[in-house]
Amino acid sequence: MKSDLDMLMEARDVDVLWVTGPAFHNPPMYYLTGGAHLTHAELIKVRGQPPVLFYNPMERDEAARTGLCTRNLAEYQSDELSKLANGNPNKAQVLRYQRMLSDMGVHAGRMAIYGRIDASRSYTWFTMLQKLMPELTIVGEIDDSPIFSAMTTKDEIEVERIRAMGKITTQVVGKTADFLSSQRVHAGMLVHQDGSPIRIGEVKKLINLWLAEAGAENPEETIFAIGGDAGVPHSTGTSSDPLRLGETIVFDIFPCEAGGGYFYDFTRTWCLGYASDVAQALYEDVLAVYQQIMDELEIGAQCRAYQERVCELFAARGHATILHDPKLQEGYVHSLGHGIGLNIHERPWFGRNASESDRLDAGVVFTVEPGLYYPSRGLGVRLENSVWARPDGKMEVLADFPMDLVLPVRQG
Amino acid sequence: MKSDLDMLMEARDVDVLWVTGPAFHNPPMYYLTGGAHLTHAELIKVRGQPPVLFYNPMERDEAARTGLCTRNLAEYQSDELSKLANGNPNKAQVLRYQRMLSDMGVHAGRMAIYGRIDASRSYTWFTMLQKLMPELTIVGEIDDSPIFSAMTTKDEIEVERIRAMGKITTQVVGKTADFLSSQRVHAGMLVHQDGSPIRIGEVKKLINLWLAEAGAENPEETIFAIGGDAGVPHSTGTSSDPLRLGETIVFDIFPCEAGGGYFYDFTRTWCLGYASDVAQALYEDVLAVYQQIMDELEIGAQCRAYQERVCELFAARGHATILHDPKLQEGYVHSLGHGIGLNIHERPWFGRNASESDRLDAGVVFTVEPGLYYPSRGLGVRLENSVWARPDGKMEVLADFPMDLVLPVRQG
Repeated sequence: MKSDLDMLMEARDVDVLWVTGPAFHNPPMYYLTGGAHLTHAELIKVRGQPPVLFYNPMERDEAARTGLCTRNLAEYQSDELSKLANGNPNKAQVLRYQRMLSDMGVHAGRMAIYGRIDASRSYTWFTMLQKLMPELTIVGEIDDSPIFSAMTTKDEIEVERIRAMGKITTQVVGKTADFLSSQRVHAGMLVHQDGSPIRIGEVKKLINLWLAEAGAENPEETIFAIGGDAGVPHSTGTSSDPLRLGETIVFDIFPCEAGGGYFYDFTRTWCLGYASDVAQALYEDVLAVYQQIMDELEIGAQCRAYQERVCELFAARGHATILHDPKLQEGYVHSLGHGIGLNIHERPWFGRNASESDRLDAGVVFTVEPGLYYPSRGLGVRLENSVWARPDGKMEVLADFPMDLVLPVRQG
Repeated sequence: MKSDLDMLMEARDVDVLWVTGPAFHNPPMYYLTGGAHLTHAELIKVRGQPPVLFYNPMERDEAARTGLCTRNLAEYQSDELSKLANGNPNKAQVLRYQRMLSDMGVHAGRMAIYGRIDASRSYTWFTMLQKLMPELTIVGEIDDSPIFSAMTTKDEIEVERIRAMGKITTQVVGKTADFLSSQRVHAGMLVHQDGSPIRIGEVKKLINLWLAEAGAENPEETIFAIGGDAGVPHSTGTSSDPLRLGETIVFDIFPCEAGGGYFYDFTRTWCLGYASDVAQALYEDVLAVYQQIMDELEIGAQCRAYQERVCELFAARGHATILHDPKLQEGYVHSLGHGIGLNIHERPWFGRNASESDRLDAGVVFTVEPGLYYPSRGLGVRLENSVWARPDGKMEVLADFPMDLVLPVRQG
């Protein structure tokens, strides 16, 4: 949690944090500013001191609203610095960085850097800064770095924001179900009044509209994939596909708060009207494994143990799993879940990248999303909820929604 | 343009381009893949050869749809690499990168890197790769790098996509004007049927909804700022503010294609019902300068000359300008414009960062957005259109919309 930041910096021997970039769609900056319309800012936090936000003067009111200590970047835009840099804008930028650090009393130590900006910029500026300040050690540690570690466990305010996104998400899923159930059927497909097929692109457009109505953003699109597409976990679906009865539809929706805030992640698999025997059998396997895993989740347990467990459970039901073949494309082919927060995918990891420190610590919010994929047979099934590992030891699904496979349709 | 890429690589002595990250909200990857639902991919282009896209196997269909040469990242996920890296995931990642380069025949030369991912990752991986491959020189050149230089001039397909976003943008602006003009007025404010004030937050929600209906995305929010907020160029406005008649409203809207594609950028300043004399006078100054600059734009001219010219024109009308005081907060306080494309702000630059190579070359799409700001007097005015420097030498505004200041309202 954010309140652990100084402690995490000490444990990892980090003296300074530097975050660069906008305050939206940039999780570390959003996390430390609370989100704001800052198109470009710099934030420096020295261990034991509150963070300082360096803002563009055109954004002074937005910066002030963050409630952080602030400084005006224009104070570092001097002609003197440009002259010192012989007109080289990158050198001027790095001299500016050095002066900002100096004004914060930083001349040496270990500094961790963050911020979602283009690698061409971050690599240039921070390698130049490293050369300019050899007493300072710039580190780009990844999962174990202080900010990302703090972000892994959520405080109650963050959980309530994720829960609110869960409510919006399930409301939109409900609207989508109602829409599909109320359409006419002809020749084994959902059709418009004029008999023309309803296509996946139209359904996605409605989903986007309902999300916008609810004040949510959908920066990474929605998966609404039928048939063979449903058999490929990240296939988003083919816009021109009609909605054929009886085939599996994987509907994976992961919106965030407007302005690049907290995400929710949710999947259901539906068959319109009826399910084929093979779809029904796969669904029952996935649902049984989902329920078994949910029963077995324990605070503090290692995530990769559950990945092994889900492979064991699917293997016992006769499915090939990624545990035995990392390149597997039919069967159980991905990881059981991942953390969610300001990133749609963040720690803890459950799959190949999971380390010993990827655990279900109190405060973690994560997905549980077993699935089975048989693209060559034209189907796939995934069921997913987002779960909060509560401080009281309970595992709570943050938004309820029926897990039924078959979605009734109007016949005739 | 994209077709210049090999030539630009040669001119800048770059042998290899490496792009990392997702294919949405990541301009260099979007540019080279055409946009796709790739949550993480790597792309390598060797000079004189077509780019190769390395994809996550769960996204194989999305990768195939790009039409690029593709390779499966799973082929680089071997246990052998993990062992070589002694279980260090960053080392494993960098060994993987080395092997990918090796498979492309790259062992030395100059490689430019790109991709909007967190600096902690890009810095870690590319500094480690640089140490591992000393014969390779990794460069993070910024504005002058081959991809960003190629992106600066748009081909006709790109211009048509920006134009289509301009049409959506002006349609939404028109709906907003119609909405405001059709509301009741009471006590000098727009009000609901029940007499309660209509607030800026409600208007912004409608704007988001209309953008979503039109299939656009709004990743960087909208500026809809009244009174003193309108006097601060990047203030997005205060949600709880009522819509008071006679005050300036700066409405700056910059949506992009869904999935993180091309942007449009557009600003009007409105006064509801009537304008105060001071607002009217500022508006006339801004409009006159806008028209004068539009008349003077010439293909191939240096952008910073126009920044100097606009300062000269505003100074002649009695306003302080940023040319004489870079920290100025009242008067003409920002730059005349910027390029637009897959970034809302990209080259060419007009302001302090502009270099000799920032020119209005044929194919550039850029904004012209003079403005005057007097926050202490509670107002600001900005007028902005997006302009295409056409190959035939003409300067074309890509979406028409009236520039009127006063928006009529229903009285009574």
